[in-house]
Amino acid sequence: MEAEPNPAASPARTRPIGVFDSGIGGLTVVSALRKILPNESIFYLGDTARVPYGGKSAATVERYSTEMIAMLLEEDCKTVVVACNTASALALPRLEALSPVPVLGVIRPGAEAAVSATRNGQIGVIGTRATIKSGAYERALRELDPALLVTARACPLFVPLIEEGWLDGEITERVVRQYLEPLVAEGIDTLVLGCTHYPLLRQTIGNFLGDAIALVDSAQNCARAVMHLLDAEALHAGGNETGHLAVALTDPPDAFLEVAQAALHFEIGAVQLRQVLHPSKP
Amino acid sequence: MEAEPNPAASPARTRPIGVFDSGIGGLTVVSALRKILPNESIFYLGDTARVPYGGKSAATVERYSTEMIAMLLEEDCKTVVVACNTASALALPRLEALSPVPVLGVIRPGAEAAVSATRNGQIGVIGTRATIKSGAYERALRELDPALLVTARACPLFVPLIEEGWLDGEITERVVRQYLEPLVAEGIDTLVLGCTHYPLLRQTIGNFLGDAIALVDSAQNCARAVMHLLDAEALHAGGNETGHLAVALTDPPDAFLEVAQAALHFEIGAVQLRQVLHPSKP
Repeated sequence: MEAEPNPAASPARTRPIGVFDSGIGGLTVVSALRKILPNESIFYLGDTARVPYGGKSAATVERYSTEMIAMLLEEDCKTVVVACNTASALALPRLEALSPVPVLGVIRPGAEAAVSATRNGQIGVIGTRATIKSGAYERALRELDPALLVTARACPLFVPLIEEGWLDGEITERVVRQYLEPLVAEGIDTLVLGCTHYPLLRQTIGNFLGDAIALVDSAQNCARAVMHLLDAEALHAGGNETGHLAVALTDPPDAFLEVAQAALHFEIGAVQLRQVLHPSKP
Repeated sequence: MEAEPNPAASPARTRPIGVFDSGIGGLTVVSALRKILPNESIFYLGDTARVPYGGKSAATVERYSTEMIAMLLEEDCKTVVVACNTASALALPRLEALSPVPVLGVIRPGAEAAVSATRNGQIGVIGTRATIKSGAYERALRELDPALLVTARACPLFVPLIEEGWLDGEITERVVRQYLEPLVAEGIDTLVLGCTHYPLLRQTIGNFLGDAIALVDSAQNCARAVMHLLDAEALHAGGNETGHLAVALTDPPDAFLEVAQAALHFEIGAVQLRQVLHPSKP
């Protein structure tokens, strides 16, 4: 299951960008990173042994996230991207405090993009139960503009629908309508897709909302924020070779990996299996 | 969060029946046990910090189940019920081998009830991805009667629908039809609800299937199997007092606990929080 050393890498192998997610939904962030930063190497870690984080408590999500970032630091990552909205919402301050390298979440970039997109100041946010309950998007949006009207809603059926591969069709359309109709009734003109899985439902959500409501994709905005961070910290990889991509999971991949690869149009190659280490015993 | 000592318990406190599940779906088994064995004490342990098991690998489910049973043995349980179909399907031989007290899963009792119920020998089984992939129900059914025709299907949307509280309504009806139509087309006359959550969808599933197809509820049959085991091993609690019920979870309960309590018509009282111990380090 070990990844092959990448023969195209520069002699002093470049330090990768570490990306972690509760599962493989964060590959949407990897896909966006590959497009705008093709020569960066990426080490992706998905905690599929404990997925999903979205229905779990803040304490548990913080503990799991701490264990994931420790594993990424062992890979000598030069920066860590918390691609999971739930982990970003609940654990970012703790992760920033303990990491010796810069840590970047998806909430702040998503909030900034939403503020740029809205014209009427009414923004909707959708995500997992834990993300919505945390109020993290509301806080980030109101820090940027206290006058915004924010309506948030948990959509816990979206991830299982996506993992089932039902990205469109009548059932998915009805679930989308059930969750989003109240947000439309509130008069939002911008909707933040506050979960890394949700871009895979972009088409069906867009069909329901129509062109008048802008969709803010946390994956794309997060990738842009990584680019700015690499600029600011002078951390860009040298050379023009395509960066190496390694994917590791804490439980072997299931059928959803194929759904994700097909939907994202990229190959991830061999997947490594890693056991979670529990460094701090109770 | 500690449970109150039960003042109604007999002086020499009776050893409880231990019940574990990946989450709180196994409360359907507890509900069935309370009805037929009201004077038994029960200690229920739900691994909500790592729920669901249904999409995870056999190795991971076996490891988690081993950790859960160790926690139940610390509670001095006189027998352990593996209320989770996924854990029963993937980990029962290992749990039986390591436990000093009898261990009972839900697969065998469900299979026996299905064999009693069928008239045409065509049985359908629904469950999580991991349960169906394991083939455990097929094996148990064919051991009882090699001539049976068995059709199995994973229904990964059912658990999230139930946890969302959408036990009926148009979306749930459509998902039920999507999953079950092929089984009906096969000509089954009996359907095993091979996941402890599924009895909460019994009404909607029954409405779709009609009276000609018998539903086998793994929770009820498991409770009956526990009663037979207590008979056979002379393990029944003495006295006529109502048994004590303690519920412990590895992550604090969320909204689904209320859905389950309302649907099952029973109160579980204060919930204890337990941290998973990792006895065997890699």
